[in-house]
Amino acid sequence: MYRSKTCGELSIRDINQEVTLAGWVQTVRKFGAITFVDLRDRYGITQLLFGENLNTLLDEQPLGREFVLQIKGLVQERSNKNPNLSTGDIEIQVTAFTILNKSAVPPFTIQDDTDGGDDLRMKYRYLDLRRNAVKRNIELRYAVNRSARNYLHEHQFMDIETPFLIKSTPEGARDFVVPSRMNPGQFYALPQSPQTFKQLLMVSGYDRYYQIVKCFRDEDLRADRQPEFTQIDCEMSFVEQEDILHMFEGLVKRIFKDVRNIDYTETITRMTWEDAMWQYGNDKPDIRFGMQIANLKSAFRKGGALLAQGELINGAGFGVFDNAETVLAIAAPGCSEYTRKQTDELTEWVKRPQIGMQGLVYIKCNTDGSFKSSVDKFYAEDKLKAIAEAAGAKAGDLVLILAGREERTRKATSELRLEMGRRLGLRREDEFKLLWVLDFPLFEYAEEENRWVARHHPFTSPKPDHIEVMINNNPVIENADLYLEHPYAHIKANAYDMVLNGNEIGGGSIRIYQRELQEKMFAALGMSPEEALHKFGFLLGAFEYGAPPHGGIAFGFDRLCAILGGSESIRDFIAFPKNNSGRDVMLDAPSSIDDKQFTELQIKLDLQ
Amino acid sequence: MYRSKTCGELSIRDINQEVTLAGWVQTVRKFGAITFVDLRDRYGITQLLFGENLNTLLDEQPLGREFVLQIKGLVQERSNKNPNLSTGDIEIQVTAFTILNKSAVPPFTIQDDTDGGDDLRMKYRYLDLRRNAVKRNIELRYAVNRSARNYLHEHQFMDIETPFLIKSTPEGARDFVVPSRMNPGQFYALPQSPQTFKQLLMVSGYDRYYQIVKCFRDEDLRADRQPEFTQIDCEMSFVEQEDILHMFEGLVKRIFKDVRNIDYTETITRMTWEDAMWQYGNDKPDIRFGMQIANLKSAFRKGGALLAQGELINGAGFGVFDNAETVLAIAAPGCSEYTRKQTDELTEWVKRPQIGMQGLVYIKCNTDGSFKSSVDKFYAEDKLKAIAEAAGAKAGDLVLILAGREERTRKATSELRLEMGRRLGLRREDEFKLLWVLDFPLFEYAEEENRWVARHHPFTSPKPDHIEVMINNNPVIENADLYLEHPYAHIKANAYDMVLNGNEIGGGSIRIYQRELQEKMFAALGMSPEEALHKFGFLLGAFEYGAPPHGGIAFGFDRLCAILGGSESIRDFIAFPKNNSGRDVMLDAPSSIDDKQFTELQIKLDLQ
Repeated sequence: MYRSKTCGELSIRDINQEVTLAGWVQTVRKFGAITFVDLRDRYGITQLLFGENLNTLLDEQPLGREFVLQIKGLVQERSNKNPNLSTGDIEIQVTAFTILNKSAVPPFTIQDDTDGGDDLRMKYRYLDLRRNAVKRNIELRYAVNRSARNYLHEHQFMDIETPFLIKSTPEGARDFVVPSRMNPGQFYALPQSPQTFKQLLMVSGYDRYYQIVKCFRDEDLRADRQPEFTQIDCEMSFVEQEDILHMFEGLVKRIFKDVRNIDYTETITRMTWEDAMWQYGNDKPDIRFGMQIANLKSAFRKGGALLAQGELINGAGFGVFDNAETVLAIAAPGCSEYTRKQTDELTEWVKRPQIGMQGLVYIKCNTDGSFKSSVDKFYAEDKLKAIAEAAGAKAGDLVLILAGREERTRKATSELRLEMGRRLGLRREDEFKLLWVLDFPLFEYAEEENRWVARHHPFTSPKPDHIEVMINNNPVIENADLYLEHPYAHIKANAYDMVLNGNEIGGGSIRIYQRELQEKMFAALGMSPEEALHKFGFLLGAFEYGAPPHGGIAFGFDRLCAILGGSESIRDFIAFPKNNSGRDVMLDAPSSIDDKQFTELQIKLDLQ
Repeated sequence: MYRSKTCGELSIRDINQEVTLAGWVQTVRKFGAITFVDLRDRYGITQLLFGENLNTLLDEQPLGREFVLQIKGLVQERSNKNPNLSTGDIEIQVTAFTILNKSAVPPFTIQDDTDGGDDLRMKYRYLDLRRNAVKRNIELRYAVNRSARNYLHEHQFMDIETPFLIKSTPEGARDFVVPSRMNPGQFYALPQSPQTFKQLLMVSGYDRYYQIVKCFRDEDLRADRQPEFTQIDCEMSFVEQEDILHMFEGLVKRIFKDVRNIDYTETITRMTWEDAMWQYGNDKPDIRFGMQIANLKSAFRKGGALLAQGELINGAGFGVFDNAETVLAIAAPGCSEYTRKQTDELTEWVKRPQIGMQGLVYIKCNTDGSFKSSVDKFYAEDKLKAIAEAAGAKAGDLVLILAGREERTRKATSELRLEMGRRLGLRREDEFKLLWVLDFPLFEYAEEENRWVARHHPFTSPKPDHIEVMINNNPVIENADLYLEHPYAHIKANAYDMVLNGNEIGGGSIRIYQRELQEKMFAALGMSPEEALHKFGFLLGAFEYGAPPHGGIAFGFDRLCAILGGSESIRDFIAFPKNNSGRDVMLDAPSSIDDKQFTELQIKLDLQ
């Protein structure tokens, strides 16, 4: 061993001990005949003191930043203590040193506030990983990993590895494929998730399965997506939805405790998908703050009905509202005194292409009880007051109203709500609010193909009392305009998402475990019986031999870590991430391959 | 929850408790008006008693093998106790039951001694996994996983995930490659191991890394190889070989204790590679038994010298020995009374193509002190006695002698030794003998290309006192016939293998961490500087910025589990293995892919 102690463990108790340390030179400070060096390793920083006797040697072998240094020396008390450092009470009087390796000057500083840009840091990721800011993330990731494994182990879950070279059955996302040399003309696929395997394990009786496992999706990468990502993947047999919610609330609470020392004792809020959409405009609401949406007029069907017809706003001669499919409002607390400049800026914000609205209507609920609006012309003060009240505004608030097509307007209002929450400091990084979103629709309508697609995946079960509806109706949509009238539009899934601070961190469902129902599901998605057999014959087969009721959940491990670490970016929590073109710029991958490889695989390029 | 208890936990203490169980019907036995059912789940088997009152219901809904059944009932003491079952003292008086799912008749019996052949069991792997014999293996695998993680965690190792979509740099084995849709014409490779990444993590200062991780090699599958396999992959900084040996002896001993309750307290034997080859004929000797090889004549260089010139056997007029490059002997204990039939059978055994020898010479060391040999004609009794003594034979032993070309003869003698060990019951499944094999050659000579290849991999460091030899000599082999005279032939690697009962379960090395030495290594392997930069520029770059001394090891997780489970076959310890053509017969993968996938990936088939 090149060291007897690490750079993070020595304290006043170790005075006069002779130690050997090894690490990286963080800083070198010369004061006349003596030299101070901060030596860094994974565990901390220890100050080294090179006395006069080592002057000549140091001149012959000057130390530079990031040199790898081994020293022998005596622990002594520091005259100038540093209370911010765990080792700040001591320093090492160096008696001998060896430069184990030199370092070129790094392309950016190895500090929390580095001068390196994103591209440079990715290219030299091995140096970026030295920075404390990144190291903390990687350590947090391991802590989450460890905590999850411990909890699941204590609850009889077994880590069972499922294969990576599987069969391509694209449903939704694209598969990455792998040509098979031994089976020319054939390809493996990399798993988008171990979904069918974990279900087979339930059929096999393994009862409680988990894996922290890489998954792969060949999707166009939006910001903060990675072609390979990690899931905490779990499945249980003989359970109903309530059992799963209970078990995995426990998991997340345990992780909070182990990783952030947070006692999350409060009951986790539950919300139906319809309520989430209605009150927050999306299916993963950030409930750290209120500012719920008031549906002044809406085409969204809640419980199958149209609940807001625009009574408060229609017929005032304001065409924007009169002609809109949907008019939604939120009340931004304490913003009634926004200046013209500020409301203009907000208007520009909602008109950006990412949001895509035509404009923004506001009502200032002044603290003196008066109301002032950008649509004063159309609405008298009592009307404004009524709208503001509907939006839940109090004196001092600013009501913000968006109008337009249902889907876009709801999305825009949700975005505006989140933006106002951010601006008003209501989305605190150190506050964690969990939420279960329940009762998702089982199907979504795919307009281009005039057919149903699975909202979650084809293995999700309908709610028990919706199974009959599914079985007894023909999935074909005769009249595309009336797809909402089709019984399938109202089937709810036995599915659940766990949401943390406005991010979906996990999602799952109770699965189908009867062959006929699974076949019906494949048919509902437009799959022919032959196609279903070709793609999922093994699963349909398995359901013939005593499949137990089962369900599960998968957590997005990268995102969970990011949120726990107070970051929006999953990349910061992945040791070697890829960029938005799916490239690893450090490796320079992907890359061309040899002719020999093409020949062996019996494939060739077919560039367009 | 569909159950209040599992089928493995009820005992006499639970009498009169009302319970709900769910599981699979193992057997149904009708005795007049009452019916006994064995109900099975992951945890065990519980006997159910259906009384007369349920007769009608049972007639209406008959129970079949592997049906999924939920019952309510009362725990009661059994009249006819079964001491072989943890639940054998009790049974459940069923009060109500629900068939949760039916089962077709399984294609083979779900029992330890199943009637299903290998192919059938692989096709219905989800049923095979229900068998106790397989379940025990999967459970053992998880226990090894858990034990390894605990040990490594306690020793400050961090699980850090490395990427699966990397760059193709074939060195030795073939890469599996993955076409990149977003980077047309380019390919990712699946990692053969996380080797370079774990080294980068050491450069980054992470100090102690581990991962239990899937690796991929596109090799022709010999028996018991899988295209995807799992490693316990570890790396440490600031260590020398001795530190690694110490740390990972601890790991394996811990696994022995946790998984098999074995206290492996004895010192782990260490052996140089040369001694292993000399005494056992291969580099992973099974040291559960002796029967060491006597080198009567050998072209193998030990310490650079030819140590056995055939003094005992040459010049007796026996051409087979006179003309052989190598003559090796072992003494099979207690076999002196083998019949002619038995020695003939052994002769046939060594003549099989897998062994490939021309014949077998034997000397019977009779218990009366006389010697009898198949070459009596050439060797007088005192000569036979001398040879037998050289082979370490005692009275009652049978000396077996093989002669021929060095490499084949040594391999054959090793195989014969293992075979005799097996036949004589000296290789006990419940005995575990660990061994470190050390001081491997750094290079192997590749005849076809007249160049050096890395015996371990190109990142392995030479022994410290051989570094100068490597740096100061030109790797080019001027005269192929004299390659053994080249200084590189005698460079030893700072590498080590851990061997368990004749199987390599782990291997590793101290790594190169200096850019110049790494460049020299790439050059020694015939790589041009441009090629080295293209393939491993990131690693050479990393070595410029303060790379610490480091080393590591990787354990073959599948094989380790197999040996601990007393099996030769890793397939039995993988939940969803592939067959010898790399196929998953359950999934029917690999398979063809859609035209759309080809178009998107911009590749096409080029079948020969």
